Amino acid sequence: MWGSLRPHINQQAQGKEVTDLDEIKNKLRQFALARDWDQFHSPKNLSMALAVEASELLERFQWLSEEQSNNLSVEQRKAVEEEMADVFLYLLRLADKLNINLLSAADDKISMNELKYPAEKVKGSSKKYTEY
Amino acid sequence: MWGSLRPHINQQAQGKEVTDLDEIKNKLRQFALARDWDQFHSPKNLSMALAVEASELLERFQWLSEEQSNNLSVEQRKAVEEEMADVFLYLLRLADKLNINLLSAADDKISMNELKYPAEKVKGSSKKYTEY
Amino acid sequence: MWGSLRPHINQQAQGKEVTDLDEIKNKLRQFALARDWDQFHSPKNLSMALAVEASELLERFQWLSEEQSNNLSVEQRKAVEEEMADVFLYLLRLADKLNINLLSAADDKISMNELKYPAEKVKGSSKKYTEY
Amino acid sequence: MWGSLRPHINQQAQGKEVTDLDEIKNKLRQFALARDWDQFHSPKNLSMALAVEASELLERFQWLSEEQSNNLSVEQRKAVEEEMADVFLYLLRLADKLNINLLSAADDKISMNELKYPAEKVKGSSKKYTEY
Repeated sequence: MWGSLRPHINQQAQGKEVTDLDEIKNKLRQFALARDWDQFHSPKNLSMALAVEASELLERFQWLSEEQSNNLSVEQRKAVEEEMADVFLYLLRLADKLNINLLSAADDKISMNELKYPAEKVKGSSKKYTEY
Repeated sequence: MWGSLRPHINQQAQGKEVTDLDEIKNKLRQFALARDWDQFHSPKNLSMALAVEASELLERFQWLSEEQSNNLSVEQRKAVEEEMADVFLYLLRLADKLNINLLSAADDKISMNELKYPAEKVKGSSKKYTEY
Repeated sequence: MWGSLRPHINQQAQGKEVTDLDEIKNKLRQFALARDWDQFHSPKNLSMALAVEASELLERFQWLSEEQSNNLSVEQRKAVEEEMADVFLYLLRLADKLNINLLSAADDKISMNELKYPAEKVKGSSKKYTEY
Repeated sequence: MWGSLRPHINQQAQGKEVTDLDEIKNKLRQFALARDWDQFHSPKNLSMALAVEASELLERFQWLSEEQSNNLSVEQRKAVEEEMADVFLYLLRLADKLNINLLSAADDKISMNELKYPAEKVKGSSKKYTEY
């Protein structure tokens, strides 16, 4: 009886994020499997695909001013969102292949950056910022 | 009594993912705020930073064979993990600035790709794959 | 009489390279001028455009094996050539804007690399190579 | 007598460009040969190395405003020049491996772009520009 209740509770526990990283990883794994594309998904190739998608995102901003990039039209924002999704998908696919936990890796990196760039030392100076 | 149990159950339900995307976004926001770096974080600039990090990931694989990329040493894997974390952090920072939900964007993109590349049509053919 | 001979001699002197870097730079300058696009060609923006083109080149190879990349079909080679031309054009445009002599910069860099990677020290070892 | 004059005239004809593209290609070929690095220089790998260098160039501009990128300090300009040289070297190395004539490919591409973007149609409009 408890067992049958738990899944329901779990779903509530995850709250707004119906989809989570593992669920997307699983979908991508099935996607590649169904197409027999896993053979192309070496980490080397996936790093290339990720870089290509990151540049497609870059392309959306290349001729915009910084101010324009802060005020995207609905169409521009939609296009940007799709490119960001592509970057994210390849990042998750690579994380799955290498068995890397992105969330904890990101969390660790923030802690490292806090040590590397002490707020009191680097605050407010673009000059200092660009030197890093 | 139930009430006091629920938080504990919830925490178990979420399992290993103590940190979630929103929590990382918040940390990054605080990080930029404390250093007065928000002024540099236009979407245009963030797209550049993201592309730079994606290429640092690419660099880790540039002289490896595909097979070697499937068999990274502990040190290589650690370096790759850190670069992936950097890509992820800028992706989340940009998502926060543009108020984009990465998880649902990724989920939508998978659905689009399933229509675009029907399994029965593209299965197993590298030729077909490379033509897309 | 001498005057009328000189241009002919000059042309022979340059040999197969009828077009040279300065000629391409000039054409690009005219191209931007005629379209009033110079306003978009800040070095920052040009570095983005160059990176975008470099990734379009990358895209041509992302799912090919190294061996396949050594044996491109006529169509693949043509596509690669066009992407390389795009990279080259933005590189020359940026060099023009910053008044940089690419040929001497490249020559200097080779000399620096010869000091940095002494042949007898790094020869033949992929392990050594990947460590750089 | 004519014969002895010609080389002098030729040298004047080529003007400042003592080094030309073929000379750099040859140096790069010798450089790779002496280190037994040709084995790593598949077109696939070279496209990755080129993209990595293009992003290192991008990195120099990522936190600069467009205006700042138009007014680089001596140190910044020197760093930019070196990254551009790296991009150029990998582009030439790849051109050599694929037996591609970069100058004529670039020249062809300009002609194609002139047809694709007629000056009278696209002139002066950033909106039009960004739509391409």
